[in-house]
Amino acid sequence: VDPVGADGPSADVPLVPGGVIRHKHGYMRRYFFPMEPVPVILTDTNLVKPALSWNLEYLEKNLGDGDFSVFYSKDHKFKYYDQAKYNDKVVPDFTPPMSQATMKFSEFLVKFRQWKHGQPRMYLQHPLNDSVGKAIKDDFLAFNWKWLESVQKEHNWGNLSSNLIYIGMEGNVTPVHYDEQENFFAQVEGFKRCILFPPETFECLYPYPVFHPHDRQSQVDFDKPDFESFPKARHLRGFECVLEPGDVLYIPKYWWHHVESLLGAGHTTSINFWYKSGPLTQVEYPLKPQRKVAMIRNLEKVVTEALGNPFEVGPLFEALALGRYI
Amino acid sequence: VDPVGADGPSADVPLVPGGVIRHKHGYMRRYFFPMEPVPVILTDTNLVKPALSWNLEYLEKNLGDGDFSVFYSKDHKFKYYDQAKYNDKVVPDFTPPMSQATMKFSEFLVKFRQWKHGQPRMYLQHPLNDSVGKAIKDDFLAFNWKWLESVQKEHNWGNLSSNLIYIGMEGNVTPVHYDEQENFFAQVEGFKRCILFPPETFECLYPYPVFHPHDRQSQVDFDKPDFESFPKARHLRGFECVLEPGDVLYIPKYWWHHVESLLGAGHTTSINFWYKSGPLTQVEYPLKPQRKVAMIRNLEKVVTEALGNPFEVGPLFEALALGRYI
Ligand SMILES: [Zn+2]
Ligand SMILES: [Zn+2]
Repeated sequence: VDPVGADGPSADVPLVPGGVIRHKHGYMRRYFFPMEPVPVILTDTNLVKPALSWNLEYLEKNLGDGDFSVFYSKDHKFKYYDQAKYNDKVVPDFTPPMSQATMKFSEFLVKFRQWKHGQPRMYLQHPLNDSVGKAIKDDFLAFNWKWLESVQKEHNWGNLSSNLIYIGMEGNVTPVHYDEQENFFAQVEGFKRCILFPPETFECLYPYPVFHPHDRQSQVDFDKPDFESFPKARHLRGFECVLEPGDVLYIPKYWWHHVESLLGAGHTTSINFWYKSGPLTQVEYPLKPQRKVAMIRNLEKVVTEALGNPFEVGPLFEALALGRYI
Repeated sequence: VDPVGADGPSADVPLVPGGVIRHKHGYMRRYFFPMEPVPVILTDTNLVKPALSWNLEYLEKNLGDGDFSVFYSKDHKFKYYDQAKYNDKVVPDFTPPMSQATMKFSEFLVKFRQWKHGQPRMYLQHPLNDSVGKAIKDDFLAFNWKWLESVQKEHNWGNLSSNLIYIGMEGNVTPVHYDEQENFFAQVEGFKRCILFPPETFECLYPYPVFHPHDRQSQVDFDKPDFESFPKARHLRGFECVLEPGDVLYIPKYWWHHVESLLGAGHTTSINFWYKSGPLTQVEYPLKPQRKVAMIRNLEKVVTEALGNPFEVGPLFEALALGRYI
């Protein structure tokens, strides 16, 4: 679906469920953040142009001999969990749904290439840092930082917090979640299907409590949604797109995203750019959905902290809300 | 029911539902606030001893010609509402369940004495202030302020905020609610039946939202409880007592109380002493039920304020809690 058409977007392109917004770079400046931040696919930013030659052989030769973080999952889902919150042990029956290993890139590639159906799937997710070789470093320095800085400035974002490189098997899924930072998600190799939901779908996606290791992840399993426990998930309508090499997807903070490496199209490589939020702007009423999510997170943290016991959080919210507000 | 018996209380008298705790003054100092504040009936404080001669004739003669606040209710219930919150009009379909009039005391007495079944009931509720005559002023000054001050000091209460005088018809009911101040409720004439519930029954009593004119009042109607809307009201177990002239009931802040003037026993006159809370003490875990109620009130206020629209409060708490904590 491409509601924009060959002529590029016009001013009143609606962000329709199931549609894909494809903006030319030139249009982005016009339509970016029309009322509130909205996801866009940018096709001509040249953001990671030098990385478009980063096939596995090139990476093997040039990524250096640093240690890389590789996740293993018994199924296709790589559901993130917060190690610090897992260590807190406030959810006693929590079992990490994936395991994490550290290995040299060459070692990763051997396992990655030898992988057979039925074995645990692999997903490399690691910050691009100083341990990389000179060629990669040069490529990195040749990213379109000038454009990034102009966007950062224009929208008053905070600092770039990290660049992660993702190398995944076809069929790998990052289940639906939201991040608290602005994200440019650059596709390098292979194809990624993304499904996006605006922040106001918070109530349809039932994120875990903030103190839970799966904080920011939805409890709704897209493979077999439990509509009895999560009835509002029925109302979910999202935005779907497929990223190709060279595409950059802007994922505004608090926007939910499900990301999957397309089956039958080989492995995928992506690089993301996370930016911290800028200073808080003047509060406007009615409150933006993003602000409400931030507020909910804050309330949960304050209450969990004040009660001194996460097991009392549910009963307190129940006493507060049930029969009174709900 | 008098679990204490003729010998006075012993150290392990349990505060059993339906029971009445009758403490001698001498014992109060020992058993007051055993773990946390608990209601007691004090029978020998002599707190308002000079007022025990305040029958209607005496009051008529000595209360002075100030204006008094009198509530009218079409039934037996005098359900308090906050005029300021009513003025806010955040609950558009709210109708005050009683009306308020201002009149001289003599005028009140005429109407009070001529009242016939089927007419709106009357309840005088007015601060004892400087407009009273000399005899009343002298009586007032002869209250047991020395004892009050010793209690206030011992328990680190704040200032006395007000003394109200209540003159009600037999059968008048003040429906179940809680106050945010410490209260000594002194019975002067007639008999009042009180039913008390501890702060932890908050969830069983479903108070209105804080921005509602009926803030601090229960939504549960004790005449015909709606157990479908308020299922936990089934679990309510309270403490019942009947106050006689000379009795002083200590109602700790956040303790729920239903007060009714006993039928067939004539009109009632009471005087209360409200004390502000003292400075916050060190937080102890697990949090006391009083603290939790204060916290819930705070959260509701913060959220109502931050959203800038009370109609968004319910949806926000629903998004926060439903399918996530509840
Ligand atoms: Zn993400
Ligand atoms: Zn009260």
